[in-house]
Amino acid sequence: MSQKYVYLFSEGDESMRELLGGKGANLAQMTKLGMPVPQGFTISTEACTRYYDDGKVIAPEIEAEIDANLAKIEEINGKKFGSVTNPLLVSVRSGARASMPGMMDTILNLGLNDEVVAGLIAGNSDPKFERFVYDSYRRFIQMYSDVVMEVGKKYFEKLIDEMKEAKGVKNDIDLDASDLKKLSEMFKAEYKKILGEDFPVDPKAQLMGAVKAVFRSWDNPRANVYRRMNDIPYSWGTAVNVQPMVFGNLNENSGTGVAFTRDPATGERKLMGEYLINAQGEDVVAGVRTPQPISKLAEEMPEVYNQFVETAQRLEKHYKDMQDMEFTIENGKLYMLQTRNGKRTAAAALKIAVDLVDEGLISEDEAVLRVDPKQLDALLHPQFDAKALKAAKVIGTGLAASPGAACGRVVFTAEDAKEWAAKGEKVVLVRLETSPEDIEGMVAAQGILTVRGGMTSHAAVVARGMGTCCVSGCGDIKMHEEEKYFVLDGITYKEGDYISLDGSTGKIYGEAVATVEATISGDFGRFMAWADAKRTLKVRTNADNPRDTLQAVKFGAEGIGLCRTEHMFFEGDRIKAIREMIVSETVEEREKALAKILPLQQGDFEEMYRVLEGRPMTVRFLDPPLHEFVPQKEEDILELANEMKLEVSKLKEIIEGLHEFNPMMGHRGCRLAVTYPEIAAMQTTAVINAAITVSKETGNMIVPEIMIPLVGEIKELKYVKDIVTSTADKLIADAGIDMTYKVGTMIEIPRAALTADEIAKEAEFFSFGTNDLTQMTFGFSRDDAGKFLDAYYDAKIYESDPFAKLDQDGVGKLVKMAADLGKTTRPDIKLGICGEHGGDPSSVEFCHNIGLSYVSCSPYRVPIARLAAAQAAIKESK
Amino acid sequence: MSQKYVYLFSEGDESMRELLGGKGANLAQMTKLGMPVPQGFTISTEACTRYYDDGKVIAPEIEAEIDANLAKIEEINGKKFGSVTNPLLVSVRSGARASMPGMMDTILNLGLNDEVVAGLIAGNSDPKFERFVYDSYRRFIQMYSDVVMEVGKKYFEKLIDEMKEAKGVKNDIDLDASDLKKLSEMFKAEYKKILGEDFPVDPKAQLMGAVKAVFRSWDNPRANVYRRMNDIPYSWGTAVNVQPMVFGNLNENSGTGVAFTRDPATGERKLMGEYLINAQGEDVVAGVRTPQPISKLAEEMPEVYNQFVETAQRLEKHYKDMQDMEFTIENGKLYMLQTRNGKRTAAAALKIAVDLVDEGLISEDEAVLRVDPKQLDALLHPQFDAKALKAAKVIGTGLAASPGAACGRVVFTAEDAKEWAAKGEKVVLVRLETSPEDIEGMVAAQGILTVRGGMTSHAAVVARGMGTCCVSGCGDIKMHEEEKYFVLDGITYKEGDYISLDGSTGKIYGEAVATVEATISGDFGRFMAWADAKRTLKVRTNADNPRDTLQAVKFGAEGIGLCRTEHMFFEGDRIKAIREMIVSETVEEREKALAKILPLQQGDFEEMYRVLEGRPMTVRFLDPPLHEFVPQKEEDILELANEMKLEVSKLKEIIEGLHEFNPMMGHRGCRLAVTYPEIAAMQTTAVINAAITVSKETGNMIVPEIMIPLVGEIKELKYVKDIVTSTADKLIADAGIDMTYKVGTMIEIPRAALTADEIAKEAEFFSFGTNDLTQMTFGFSRDDAGKFLDAYYDAKIYESDPFAKLDQDGVGKLVKMAADLGKTTRPDIKLGICGEHGGDPSSVEFCHNIGLSYVSCSPYRVPIARLAAAQAAIKESK
Repeated sequence: MSQKYVYLFSEGDESMRELLGGKGANLAQMTKLGMPVPQGFTISTEACTRYYDDGKVIAPEIEAEIDANLAKIEEINGKKFGSVTNPLLVSVRSGARASMPGMMDTILNLGLNDEVVAGLIAGNSDPKFERFVYDSYRRFIQMYSDVVMEVGKKYFEKLIDEMKEAKGVKNDIDLDASDLKKLSEMFKAEYKKILGEDFPVDPKAQLMGAVKAVFRSWDNPRANVYRRMNDIPYSWGTAVNVQPMVFGNLNENSGTGVAFTRDPATGERKLMGEYLINAQGEDVVAGVRTPQPISKLAEEMPEVYNQFVETAQRLEKHYKDMQDMEFTIENGKLYMLQTRNGKRTAAAALKIAVDLVDEGLISEDEAVLRVDPKQLDALLHPQFDAKALKAAKVIGTGLAASPGAACGRVVFTAEDAKEWAAKGEKVVLVRLETSPEDIEGMVAAQGILTVRGGMTSHAAVVARGMGTCCVSGCGDIKMHEEEKYFVLDGITYKEGDYISLDGSTGKIYGEAVATVEATISGDFGRFMAWADAKRTLKVRTNADNPRDTLQAVKFGAEGIGLCRTEHMFFEGDRIKAIREMIVSETVEEREKALAKILPLQQGDFEEMYRVLEGRPMTVRFLDPPLHEFVPQKEEDILELANEMKLEVSKLKEIIEGLHEFNPMMGHRGCRLAVTYPEIAAMQTTAVINAAITVSKETGNMIVPEIMIPLVGEIKELKYVKDIVTSTADKLIADAGIDMTYKVGTMIEIPRAALTADEIAKEAEFFSFGTNDLTQMTFGFSRDDAGKFLDAYYDAKIYESDPFAKLDQDGVGKLVKMAADLGKTTRPDIKLGICGEHGGDPSSVEFCHNIGLSYVSCSPYRVPIARLAAAQAAIKESK
Repeated sequence: MSQKYVYLFSEGDESMRELLGGKGANLAQMTKLGMPVPQGFTISTEACTRYYDDGKVIAPEIEAEIDANLAKIEEINGKKFGSVTNPLLVSVRSGARASMPGMMDTILNLGLNDEVVAGLIAGNSDPKFERFVYDSYRRFIQMYSDVVMEVGKKYFEKLIDEMKEAKGVKNDIDLDASDLKKLSEMFKAEYKKILGEDFPVDPKAQLMGAVKAVFRSWDNPRANVYRRMNDIPYSWGTAVNVQPMVFGNLNENSGTGVAFTRDPATGERKLMGEYLINAQGEDVVAGVRTPQPISKLAEEMPEVYNQFVETAQRLEKHYKDMQDMEFTIENGKLYMLQTRNGKRTAAAALKIAVDLVDEGLISEDEAVLRVDPKQLDALLHPQFDAKALKAAKVIGTGLAASPGAACGRVVFTAEDAKEWAAKGEKVVLVRLETSPEDIEGMVAAQGILTVRGGMTSHAAVVARGMGTCCVSGCGDIKMHEEEKYFVLDGITYKEGDYISLDGSTGKIYGEAVATVEATISGDFGRFMAWADAKRTLKVRTNADNPRDTLQAVKFGAEGIGLCRTEHMFFEGDRIKAIREMIVSETVEEREKALAKILPLQQGDFEEMYRVLEGRPMTVRFLDPPLHEFVPQKEEDILELANEMKLEVSKLKEIIEGLHEFNPMMGHRGCRLAVTYPEIAAMQTTAVINAAITVSKETGNMIVPEIMIPLVGEIKELKYVKDIVTSTADKLIADAGIDMTYKVGTMIEIPRAALTADEIAKEAEFFSFGTNDLTQMTFGFSRDDAGKFLDAYYDAKIYESDPFAKLDQDGVGKLVKMAADLGKTTRPDIKLGICGEHGGDPSSVEFCHNIGLSYVSCSPYRVPIARLAAAQAAIKESK
């Protein structure tokens, strides 16, 4: 039997979403439920895939199926394509498996031509009807030209403007039937002028053109970007829905509207929506007339209203979720044109999920599955006011480095940020790049914008830790930091000018855009408790200071999975001691410098242990290449030389000697501990002494976890571990305390993953450092990949950023292999992940599925990870 | 039963080499053969391993075994440790599984103390004997202090010098018995002064100290370096041989000597050796008296001579290999002290292997296994004259970048190299680093020395291709290129000064050291034919020009496995076109520049196809990051800006824009083809057109092989492959020729290996790029690893350079996984390797074992790979 590509609405149901797309499946389901749906057909997603496989052609057998189904709907609807007396007009709409609102193309009123138009008018004496028909006609020509033939709207807009000027009117609505008739003639002439051929009069030819155009729109740039942002695979394809038109603008007994079964902004349980009498969908959008609230319909057309309310309730009960519906009333008769689970704000999502449980419609598990973990960001960070945002102009885009919205006045230094904030001003700190000295200014700012630096730059990491909005790496900015201004999109922004940032999208607005504060409702706690009850994966946080730790604990973190000790190195005067250590030429000099660092680092660990109140903390030893710590500016070099009593030329030679061709693959991680064991000894002392101190204070024995980074070989781990254990054992013995501790490793080098059975002989835990592991496995560095990744997205070689969403086929295979190998050697080995992926829902699900013990992510992602972990557990149990 | 750690010579045989070490096993075997061996015992290599495992202590049960065996040899030899009348004196010598001559420690005459000395003298009235005893005594004290107690020889040498000065004599031999007696007293006093304790008088205590010292010497720096160079695992450990002393200096009826059963320099079949009457081994080495050729012994002691000749013949027959023997004659009686397979030159190794086959002693297979593939280098490149080398002083060491020896006068520019060479001078080109413009100077030079650059730098790669000696990356050189001098080891070398380079060791000599030319004997061809008959692995070459290709074909290359197209980009004026292409801002500009490159590249391919005479060639598309091609010097930038009609500032901006943080992980390989498909199209055209042209010329149809580098994902390969096939198919159709071609990929990114089953859907062959694969798998870059690898060798974390010897546990695991996955998808997939490892014998064996089809290596390594592949096949068949 040959494959079936086209389905009447009456042949499908909601279970056929993959084949018919969301819109098609729901139209079929509504048909099945006996609801009033204009009966059309759906061309399946498989036809779309076939279209691309065949080199962008619609195969003859698919066209034959379309013909056959067209005949069937002509019969069902009692109308005929191209008929002068009783013409069938159709809408042609895309409909993918996942909703992609506005991303693909739609054509309405297809089937019109001069003869059909004339016939329609002849059949209706209402003078308004003639205007409606010509209006539909010129709109159809314009839409078809634009969508199918790629002749831009501007050509037609120009003609409309000329017409309006000639007539001395302002709005389209003021043009009468003869004006519109003239316009449709002019449009056809313009079409011929540009394309060299007549506008197609054959409705069947129009239909095939429109179907192709919808298929083609699956591959348009905005659809591709939307898919990448929403993890929708390119391979899915879109279905095409061909549905007879019904007319809400036929007379005063007609109308059109949209409605939600619950408030999509708050989640409140009440029918929400609006409608217009004697209007088509477009009129609602155009905003010329003000739509009426749906409640008004109860007065105007009580019977229709009751029918609609009943339909809406049935749909919500059927789908067990808030519905977003489109309807049209044609001459007093209600038609349902679409229903779908409605998009909603994070707050509404939470309330609806909780309410549906209370109403007995869904279980707690289902409720947990109903909220997109990524949405939780919006509950934890300020967001833009939706209305204000609509009017705002994007002046540039950077990396979405830390989510939330920020609005404030531009300042260029951390000092200014502090000063202005102290005076009560909201500020956005704009820097070429931030450095550790900027920390106080970053705390004072609403948002941070940098010209350089990626998703793991200082600005990005620190901002995410604090939950502050950050857009990083906007290379289009021409920066004049010293003169305190920057140029973007051709406009100069000076100190004090307002800008706004969206850290969730990377967009920059050149004006003040109002924000709304984050609010967490009581539902949140109840909802997260359901999630936690199902979750088996632990969620820890990446935190490097007491402040972030406290925030993460409030968000439900069950410990610290990654404490990057080097982040502590920058605060205050300690960077000087670090630099002294780095430029030391003998072990003695180095130990002298380390002795200065020890009490500071130990103090930090003590504070963090106190905040953690018994929760575990994994401390990673020094990781980055040392050149990241040395001064580059002449004055700083002079100062350091002076402090170190070194000749400037000698110091410069040392700094020059730290240069590396590929620092990412250079002298860093445990390689530093191998060449300078005294650093590892100092860090061990700081961790163990801090644990001893706080254990004695509280009476609860801490079990310190020490993590060796960048291990690639068992002997390397053993070498560093020996330094750790000999140091730690002595301290513990001296303290006369009964303390145990764990030594583990990051798995972030492919070789470590490949030899994980060996590594596990020494490592008591693995933490997958998927940032570096992704870099090494793909062989490209995060800092450099920007130069070609766009070309890769365009060519659909990669559909998502592997640094944001774990690449399960490659990196994930390595992670799973390492996890399995590790368990063969040490069945009870603790396995976690601490890369950026620890806060990405699909990656969290992967971690759950391969049996990791925990994920660790930045504090503000902890709730996201908790929810994602719960969803993974529920999905697995099904 | 508890483990046995100590074996009498009579308890062992040659099969116990792993346990007893080479020396011990052979002493046991000679004992078994009934040869005259002073009967002692061997402390096993397992005792050495145990010593290290126990924290450098000799366990009580091992000491007890030593005591028991000491008692046995006292009984066997009828002498007693510490006896005044009949003392047992012993030698204590190391003996590892593989011979490590001179790397570890030896102690002779152990058992002496004041009382024993007095007793010995009392028992022998010969006045010479008293001198001998005191001489042995003072030597023993000195040796023991040095080896066991680590008190440097210098303290004692100083006392000897003072004594000689006081006596007015020049040589040690001129000191009489009483002088030596006095010296032994002074030595003991010095010992006490430095160590604060008396020199040990108890022979048993002396013995235990000596055994420990030998164990300890397994871990001394020179032994570690030797092991790394010779792939000897640290875990093997050394055995210790304790053997009663026999005295060749007892009287005129005594003597000592060494001999080979064949000439170790030429392989000629004749007893070679020398001896001294009334002497100990040390005297032969000291060079005070001239030893006699062994043939003279036939006159002096015919009976002993005949016994020795017969013994030597039996040993050679027994071991079926040339033997290197030590013997001593004590009072007319012959004692065998050692036999082993003799070290030999490459030429001798070849001749001996072939002769042994002709003599019916070994099979052809055994002969093939007898020659170390690495030794073949010496047959293909000039070497230093051994005698001249002994006297030469090493002034510095760089990387052994291309083997062979070179001697010549220093020049600092490629032009000077050409000029001087044209005048008949031999020159060594010394450069900060070489660049493609230096190519003619490099051809003219005997050797190349660079300050910067690693094993894959331009200098290294080009030199290996040409077979020219090269030492690269000698960072100790203070270079003054413009002033034409450099400073090394404190000495200034100017233009015209002589230096010599050893490209096999990286050593630099500050003087002329005579070299001997490479000569390939007739045995070579016969021997290699035996090897080729056994070999199943194909051997190709890495070559980028017709010259290297021709050389490789002469060395037996069966095709080109890697033609790096970018190496062609530097010759002559073509770099200008390349640069034009790189700085192009539009596709049109880029295509214009590419059009200039096309005929040049096509011409190169044609030449190479002609030289190959039908052998296959794999062409790799553009690989390195583009910044490697752009000018960095101001004048070159000006020139290019002028040619391109670009503003200098604009050009500088473009060049700056090519900067990458981690170029190794940046915009390179197939990523270039994804962003600039026109480059891949041009390269395809060049390859296919060249193949068409040469196929038409010769009438033999070439099957071009196009290789896409740096692939990490199937879609990426497909994208580039589509460019290749659409371009190639059209050219072939236009040519009206029936040509097929293959498109394959490098596997050099871990992700490609992990997803090789997917990749194989598009790739018709895999070539493992183990250089990059090693970098990515280990997570360290070859250019940067130098900073910490020494610390890793010292800590024994790595025992060999993973860039020279394939890391089988990690990288090899990935290679094997990819090979297996590739075969599941495409059972007939062609699998090769084209990294540096393709010429490394142990890596070649690995490639054979995992079922690769071929290895590809630089031309001069082709014979090495052929032999290594044959040995792998023979070993496997056993």
